[in-house]
Amino acid sequence: MSGPNRRILLRTRPTGRPDASTWQLDQPAVPTPGESEFLVRLSFVSVDPAMRAWISGQRTYRPPVQPGELMPAAGVGRVVASRHPKFLVGETVTGAFGVQEYALSTGAGVVRVDARRAPPEEYLGLLGTAGLTAHIGLFTIGRVRPGDTVVVSGAAGAVGSVVGQLARIAGARAVGIAGGEAKCRYVARELGFDACVDRRGPALDAALRAACPAGIDVLFDNVGGAVLEAGLDNIARGARVVLCGAISQYDDERMRGPANYMQLLVQRASMTGFLVFDHIEEFGRIVTELLRRRDEGTLRADTYVIDGIENFSTAFDGLFDGANRGKTVLRVATSGTELTAPERTST
Amino acid sequence: MSGPNRRILLRTRPTGRPDASTWQLDQPAVPTPGESEFLVRLSFVSVDPAMRAWISGQRTYRPPVQPGELMPAAGVGRVVASRHPKFLVGETVTGAFGVQEYALSTGAGVVRVDARRAPPEEYLGLLGTAGLTAHIGLFTIGRVRPGDTVVVSGAAGAVGSVVGQLARIAGARAVGIAGGEAKCRYVARELGFDACVDRRGPALDAALRAACPAGIDVLFDNVGGAVLEAGLDNIARGARVVLCGAISQYDDERMRGPANYMQLLVQRASMTGFLVFDHIEEFGRIVTELLRRRDEGTLRADTYVIDGIENFSTAFDGLFDGANRGKTVLRVATSGTELTAPERTST
Repeated sequence: MSGPNRRILLRTRPTGRPDASTWQLDQPAVPTPGESEFLVRLSFVSVDPAMRAWISGQRTYRPPVQPGELMPAAGVGRVVASRHPKFLVGETVTGAFGVQEYALSTGAGVVRVDARRAPPEEYLGLLGTAGLTAHIGLFTIGRVRPGDTVVVSGAAGAVGSVVGQLARIAGARAVGIAGGEAKCRYVARELGFDACVDRRGPALDAALRAACPAGIDVLFDNVGGAVLEAGLDNIARGARVVLCGAISQYDDERMRGPANYMQLLVQRASMTGFLVFDHIEEFGRIVTELLRRRDEGTLRADTYVIDGIENFSTAFDGLFDGANRGKTVLRVATSGTELTAPERTST
Repeated sequence: MSGPNRRILLRTRPTGRPDASTWQLDQPAVPTPGESEFLVRLSFVSVDPAMRAWISGQRTYRPPVQPGELMPAAGVGRVVASRHPKFLVGETVTGAFGVQEYALSTGAGVVRVDARRAPPEEYLGLLGTAGLTAHIGLFTIGRVRPGDTVVVSGAAGAVGSVVGQLARIAGARAVGIAGGEAKCRYVARELGFDACVDRRGPALDAALRAACPAGIDVLFDNVGGAVLEAGLDNIARGARVVLCGAISQYDDERMRGPANYMQLLVQRASMTGFLVFDHIEEFGRIVTELLRRRDEGTLRADTYVIDGIENFSTAFDGLFDGANRGKTVLRVATSGTELTAPERTST
């Protein structure tokens, strides 16, 4: 436990797209657990589009990150020292540990996971917030029904990739929107969506109409801006628009609202925002279902791994314009084998 | 039945605010009912903000009005000739008769009303589409509960004035938004809202926050634009935003969406559009309730009357910037006493 705990702080609030100068690498000593605390050595740290909103200073669902503060993030790792009665050395846990290699915890919000069932990084993606967000957004908020047409933007991303697959499992038609031909091929061929529309292509509105001749029943939006507008132009009567993110808008000082929001009136439709953390009582049931689908091979979730805490900026940037597919994570324990191999052998 | 049937046609699609040149007075002969038809002499014609959207050429919930066509409108009048088995001469009826003095009808969408219970023009306002829209929007869509804070924009208008009064009857706090001090006084003092905020005043957002310290639970929006944004900035957790209109936006080629729509996510809120005509099965029950409240004096609805079909343009313009309060109607039968007096005597 000697040596530094490398971690990423917010250095300055960015104007526009964040870059390397937005962040600062800090290297304090690895801390020692006090009474009722334990120390986690992180193996993977989650990298999420919502982080852009957290550092913006705008009002979101959590207090803005202040310059000089540790960048918040979900993570998964192993308890390596403990003075806590319930979290024991060797257990694998997930929680809001921040972008760092070691985290002290009192156990608040920390969940023990079964590292024999799935690789730890999947507890940040399919079996974590991303999968839970997809499921709750599609079923609880979007009330998807067999025969519906579901459109999801950010379809190659951590949440979107699961939404479309779950829609097909539910008997709906799944249409993705993704940035670029390569991502669209991935969504349609590898993830098995019925279709995928390139948001960078010409005439997004018309392309979406062609892909959804009966209109959109559930529009699951991660992107905002012109993508949300094209979706709203194509909603069916009684559609449910699920607001999950607005990745196209986070860099702007002033976000742009959907100019055609009155399509909600024309089509007697609703647009609803949600936060996955309001639905904690459903998590156990849903993770069990997602694990079962994963094991039977009907649900696939890819992880896009970037090595090293010092590459956080690169990983984050890739969420917006990059080639990232599925869930983006930082692998922070370079001696990952040592940490996870014993627990993985039984899968 | 000799003489002309004066009526208003759309002459040209307006750019920006419509004016007298938008409309054309037409004077064909009064028509004669064919088999299974009847002729209505209109006494009052409804003048509505939504008409601006109908003539815009935009996609709304009805086909756009084409230049040269009769301007559609709801109206109330008396059957003066009939070859229809169910609608008899002397009966008072409401329906989509258009902006004209006489209308032929087959009975489709026409409802017989009891002119002894209330003056006929009230069947276009409190006891017609405006009152039904207020009730269904507030209760069925907005799910108002006792103790809620309800904010309604266009509070001095036909729908808004009823929304606030019904909110108070339901045990909620009613806050209006209206244009100008005089309208705000009318809303707060004469209609009995708990407060009214002037949308033309400085710092609308802060004024609304001061009037709604616990946040807005139901935001009933008739206005759009900056008014909707100020409302969204102040919604409470789990708020219901009811989309009824966007009167501030209808004149623009391209509407402006609410830039802060992601407050719906931050506050786990929904924004829902509706059309009153989807809820026809509830109309009978609601009109009975509205009549009872009206008779007991707990629900007041004012009618703003302008005389003469030729003054349609003036009446319409007044909806946007004028002094109109309550329901705006055109009185088109100048011999109104003759038509309605016998039926009114028993109230």
